[in-house]
Amino acid sequence: MTNHAFYMDLALQNAQAMKGQTDPNPLVGSVIVNDNRIVGIGAHMKAGEPHAEIHALSMAGDKAKGATIYVTLEPCSHHGRTGPCAEAIVKAGIQTVVIATLDPNPVVSGRGVKILEDAGIGVIVGVEEEASRKMNEVFNKFIVENKPFVTMKSGITLDGKIASHTGHSKWITSEDARLDVHHLRNEHMAILVGVNTVIADNPELTTRIPNGRNPLRVVLDSTLKIPLESKLVTDKLADTWIFTSANYNEEKKVALEKLGISVFHTTAPKHVDPVEVVTILGEKSISSLLIEGGGTINAAFLENQLIDKAIIYIAPKLIGGKHAPSFMAGTGIESMDDAVELEDTDIVKIGKDFKFVGYPVYKRGIME
Amino acid sequence: MTNHAFYMDLALQNAQAMKGQTDPNPLVGSVIVNDNRIVGIGAHMKAGEPHAEIHALSMAGDKAKGATIYVTLEPCSHHGRTGPCAEAIVKAGIQTVVIATLDPNPVVSGRGVKILEDAGIGVIVGVEEEASRKMNEVFNKFIVENKPFVTMKSGITLDGKIASHTGHSKWITSEDARLDVHHLRNEHMAILVGVNTVIADNPELTTRIPNGRNPLRVVLDSTLKIPLESKLVTDKLADTWIFTSANYNEEKKVALEKLGISVFHTTAPKHVDPVEVVTILGEKSISSLLIEGGGTINAAFLENQLIDKAIIYIAPKLIGGKHAPSFMAGTGIESMDDAVELEDTDIVKIGKDFKFVGYPVYKRGIME
Amino acid sequence: MTNHAFYMDLALQNAQAMKGQTDPNPLVGSVIVNDNRIVGIGAHMKAGEPHAEIHALSMAGDKAKGATIYVTLEPCSHHGRTGPCAEAIVKAGIQTVVIATLDPNPVVSGRGVKILEDAGIGVIVGVEEEASRKMNEVFNKFIVENKPFVTMKSGITLDGKIASHTGHSKWITSEDARLDVHHLRNEHMAILVGVNTVIADNPELTTRIPNGRNPLRVVLDSTLKIPLESKLVTDKLADTWIFTSANYNEEKKVALEKLGISVFHTTAPKHVDPVEVVTILGEKSISSLLIEGGGTINAAFLENQLIDKAIIYIAPKLIGGKHAPSFMAGTGIESMDDAVELEDTDIVKIGKDFKFVGYPVYKRGIME
Amino acid sequence: MTNHAFYMDLALQNAQAMKGQTDPNPLVGSVIVNDNRIVGIGAHMKAGEPHAEIHALSMAGDKAKGATIYVTLEPCSHHGRTGPCAEAIVKAGIQTVVIATLDPNPVVSGRGVKILEDAGIGVIVGVEEEASRKMNEVFNKFIVENKPFVTMKSGITLDGKIASHTGHSKWITSEDARLDVHHLRNEHMAILVGVNTVIADNPELTTRIPNGRNPLRVVLDSTLKIPLESKLVTDKLADTWIFTSANYNEEKKVALEKLGISVFHTTAPKHVDPVEVVTILGEKSISSLLIEGGGTINAAFLENQLIDKAIIYIAPKLIGGKHAPSFMAGTGIESMDDAVELEDTDIVKIGKDFKFVGYPVYKRGIME
Ligand SMILES: [Zn+2]
Ligand SMILES: [Zn+2]
Ligand SMILES: [Zn+2]
Ligand SMILES: [Zn+2]
Repeated sequence: MTNHAFYMDLALQNAQAMKGQTDPNPLVGSVIVNDNRIVGIGAHMKAGEPHAEIHALSMAGDKAKGATIYVTLEPCSHHGRTGPCAEAIVKAGIQTVVIATLDPNPVVSGRGVKILEDAGIGVIVGVEEEASRKMNEVFNKFIVENKPFVTMKSGITLDGKIASHTGHSKWITSEDARLDVHHLRNEHMAILVGVNTVIADNPELTTRIPNGRNPLRVVLDSTLKIPLESKLVTDKLADTWIFTSANYNEEKKVALEKLGISVFHTTAPKHVDPVEVVTILGEKSISSLLIEGGGTINAAFLENQLIDKAIIYIAPKLIGGKHAPSFMAGTGIESMDDAVELEDTDIVKIGKDFKFVGYPVYKRGIME
Repeated sequence: MTNHAFYMDLALQNAQAMKGQTDPNPLVGSVIVNDNRIVGIGAHMKAGEPHAEIHALSMAGDKAKGATIYVTLEPCSHHGRTGPCAEAIVKAGIQTVVIATLDPNPVVSGRGVKILEDAGIGVIVGVEEEASRKMNEVFNKFIVENKPFVTMKSGITLDGKIASHTGHSKWITSEDARLDVHHLRNEHMAILVGVNTVIADNPELTTRIPNGRNPLRVVLDSTLKIPLESKLVTDKLADTWIFTSANYNEEKKVALEKLGISVFHTTAPKHVDPVEVVTILGEKSISSLLIEGGGTINAAFLENQLIDKAIIYIAPKLIGGKHAPSFMAGTGIESMDDAVELEDTDIVKIGKDFKFVGYPVYKRGIME
Repeated sequence: MTNHAFYMDLALQNAQAMKGQTDPNPLVGSVIVNDNRIVGIGAHMKAGEPHAEIHALSMAGDKAKGATIYVTLEPCSHHGRTGPCAEAIVKAGIQTVVIATLDPNPVVSGRGVKILEDAGIGVIVGVEEEASRKMNEVFNKFIVENKPFVTMKSGITLDGKIASHTGHSKWITSEDARLDVHHLRNEHMAILVGVNTVIADNPELTTRIPNGRNPLRVVLDSTLKIPLESKLVTDKLADTWIFTSANYNEEKKVALEKLGISVFHTTAPKHVDPVEVVTILGEKSISSLLIEGGGTINAAFLENQLIDKAIIYIAPKLIGGKHAPSFMAGTGIESMDDAVELEDTDIVKIGKDFKFVGYPVYKRGIME
Repeated sequence: MTNHAFYMDLALQNAQAMKGQTDPNPLVGSVIVNDNRIVGIGAHMKAGEPHAEIHALSMAGDKAKGATIYVTLEPCSHHGRTGPCAEAIVKAGIQTVVIATLDPNPVVSGRGVKILEDAGIGVIVGVEEEASRKMNEVFNKFIVENKPFVTMKSGITLDGKIASHTGHSKWITSEDARLDVHHLRNEHMAILVGVNTVIADNPELTTRIPNGRNPLRVVLDSTLKIPLESKLVTDKLADTWIFTSANYNEEKKVALEKLGISVFHTTAPKHVDPVEVVTILGEKSISSLLIEGGGTINAAFLENQLIDKAIIYIAPKLIGGKHAPSFMAGTGIESMDDAVELEDTDIVKIGKDFKFVGYPVYKRGIME
């Protein structure tokens, strides 16, 4: 391993450790090296707090002068609460900046580098680039499209079902898989379900692991039929946002808002439009969304090419049932040629179950 | 590895190499060792031909005297075309017999050992027992129950579907997975489909690998609606047996039989009864059956607790469709507690797809 | 992985990254967690600079109040340039301290914990303890015995030789192995050779990797016969210390000292006593010593039970030669029962060669 | 795996299982396939007994007609006790012959293929060729050069020594490694030591594993100083051959021969010439020789480029001793550039010790 890779890996490790606590900001780490020794380490830890470079520069103090700084993302060029980091780097007297990947936002990408180079600082871009990009798959989507990175999660039987024909579904997957879901929740800013799930299960949708962070709870409810006594409405364990269609019930909306629930209406006349939901969530700075819906919601998001990642827990059991619901409903494609393939796929055993991960690849136009 | 295990492994390797060619007989291998060197090897190669021990004894000749014979299955005690092997072993002057596993057939199990011990031969049972048993999972079922070992095979999308809502299904899995299916066919004595598959796809159901053996083709056809011009009826590439309900069309039956097709009728009034099918196949010495049916047939076999092994090829693609068929239809169970769990599960990557293997564990009474 | 292990691992990673730059201090890392999110990270980076906890506390700021601090080594209790850290932790309002391992120094071990507990802080000891101990094997020896951790390194042929019978030795090992040696040098405070090596090879003993740190160069030279024009005497690339016997040449000593070389004399009348050398190096705060000597020096250190770790690069080549020198000379043991066994052994391939690592286990008294 | 590879692998497995019992003949296996199923398997089991093809043909019987035979070595063309197999294959009506590798003997290589092709049989050469060649490294040397394949075995300390300076050597390696040596002995036709080892240790040089075959025992004894009461002379556990120089003691020779020992004299005036020893052993049909000598013997064989393979058990212990003997003595090379490098090297852990395997590559002329 070259020295560049060694120091960048340390920066990546520190960045990665902050997973789940920087939303909507990306994971970023930094290391400063002077005269062949590390003099500062830092990572971005929370939106509104200092960026990784600022922490590392602060730890390095005078020793930043003439040093090389490693940072997993291009230093920012904008004046924010703690930025721009590019200028802070210049001021600190840094001699060389090694960057894993440029800012994914096309609007500002390259500006940080320009500030540095204009100040006569040597800049190297691309060290451990792929690792840095993968680490921030959520942020990279969000910053470019201003929409959350959407992960569809489902726990299914080997025959692809999420409940028996009578609707019974407790439990499909083993405890190990269900614990893993709580880690998923912990890493997401928001979790989305349909109102039918709320009515059927009255779930809490919280993160039941030690020190877990509860995500924002999002409910798609075209007609605002959510019961006022639902846990999501009353338990105050986390915020709950309800998205409704154009034809919502104003009275119910007022009742919900009195209870502290936010209600957003989309313009679709009958069913909540998932595209609008995602757009609104993006505007509200929600960068990551975990869908725990049923087949209808999953299909609506798939058809609109909104699913960025699929995580499927497959329990090795068969339940049968022509009318037992699958995790993907809707109309579906007609010809196999139009199937949405997933790439970067992986399956690992988790307890008795198998956890599948993959990334849908959309052929533009097919299902629009 | 002890010497016992070393020699038994060689016997197992030779036995395993005969996979697919000994039906309905089990895979059996044998090794004879005299004065610390191997003097004979043998395996059972085809029903009606000599058993493994006979081949090994023949190769060893005089050197069998005072030797140790390793055999992966208890030597037979019955007078058949080449048996009983136990007596042949006695006559050859063998001193010690090392056996992996006793005959699974409770009627004769232990009789071979008794003949040997009565003749004063030392007998050791249980060397590499588990490996021998797994190798003959097909035979062990057949010999005890006189019914074929049933493997359900399906190629599905990640969302558990075997066709789009329009019925399109070419191709769900990749070429690699489909080649693997041909190896499955090669290893089975019979392959079973429903008549709807025949009507929809007009398949050949042959083994398209070099030197592949074509299995017997079994069609469930309650009303004998199979077209007379179907490949299965006309192509002569392998035998075709059709199972029908009590209410079959006599005229069509005669027409089929004229074309060389065997027609069996089960007693069920409306739908072919899979229990009867399996019973008849067993009586006809079919020891292994590969089901390549759709959701209805799969479910009928599952509900009757007839599936011994499930092999599911999962293609990493999503197609959606509430009405796209799943590989397991029927009524299905009501409560998750009644799900049929699979054990000894494994998933491996095969081309772009994943191959799942598992063994259903039935709770007696649940779905009967 | 529990949360405790997760955070301690991050602390360990940051500590480990500082390998080679903290001498004579141990590697220490720290992580502060408040309300389920990381609020500070730190590592000790250089002797004389702040301890890991101080960096982490500084990054955490107000958020240290009520937080949990993870630290890979017991916080110090002594007033030094930056300590005692235990008091800083108390002052910062930390609620819980999780420690990987207590201070190995029996004189102060437990004192830091006592300060914390007396202040009403919850203390947990032993999370990832083994990893922390292994990471600081050098320091743990040094702090307890005030002597350097001694690693013997040798590059040998498969027949155990370090040169041909004519003394030719360039090169035994491949370039990959020789590069690895430079990494070893980089991690050690001092490197030791015999004067014969200096005379024969006139080596620089520097670290030829990018940004490598040159260790102090130590020469055992019983009669001060080192040539004044040796690179070690003249090149100024690193300090050179020469250890001589009681019967050194005063004039030569003065000449060497004029050239900036430090000369230490041991009390042994004829040969430099390695025990005294190690003791003096310890007194001079040299915590790690890499021996790159020949067979005589290696044997002298082994006989005095001074070798803590052996790293042998074995080149797969045979050179023969009854008089070709082995890497371990001296008198040696008489009976195989007295051989010095090595434990925790490992061999990995490195280029064409093999790298062996092991830790000698001395039976007290055998060779004293 | 193609079918060709599948069947050849089975042939290789059966051949390999005979390791140690076919000397001086090669390991050969055969499989016959007719109409897509195996109808015969065979392996060569002992010199003087049928070749692999004959066993397989005999098992196949009539089913050899029109079949494909797989054989790991070119069928022989010479009239021997059971040959020529090429003609037997022709007579049996075989249609295709698939061969892993041609006969290594340049004198006859290709003749078997010619007989087959002249008879109109299709011949495919090269399936699993490398595996077949490696399996018969011993035979391939022997058949081409009419000299045994020589493996030097040694058990050494980490510092390359085979005894302490007092000559004590029991035990250097652990029980696991010593057991492995007995497996080596089991696989070799002859084992060679120097007379000094006989005098010092009075060894049996037998194979102490269950059912082990004792190799011929060869002693190099320039002056016939072997004690008449040595176990090798008196124990009758295996044959003992003594090689002496031109100046042997005739009286002692007679005495030894009376005790059943064979004495061979080489022409060298002072020391036994290892080249002549190897030549004579080859003439006596000894195809594999395991050298368990000391440093002098090992060096004599190395200098004469006679070592084909080196197996070194390295015990992780240090014993020191400038005068403790190394496993490779002699004069040795002068410049490192002349070192004998080993290729295809491997090290595995075996008990507490490490087992090194490699193949010397000689630069012609260097040490001649
Ligand atoms: Zn910034
Ligand atoms: Zn039999
Ligand atoms: Zn401190
Ligand atoms: Zn032959």
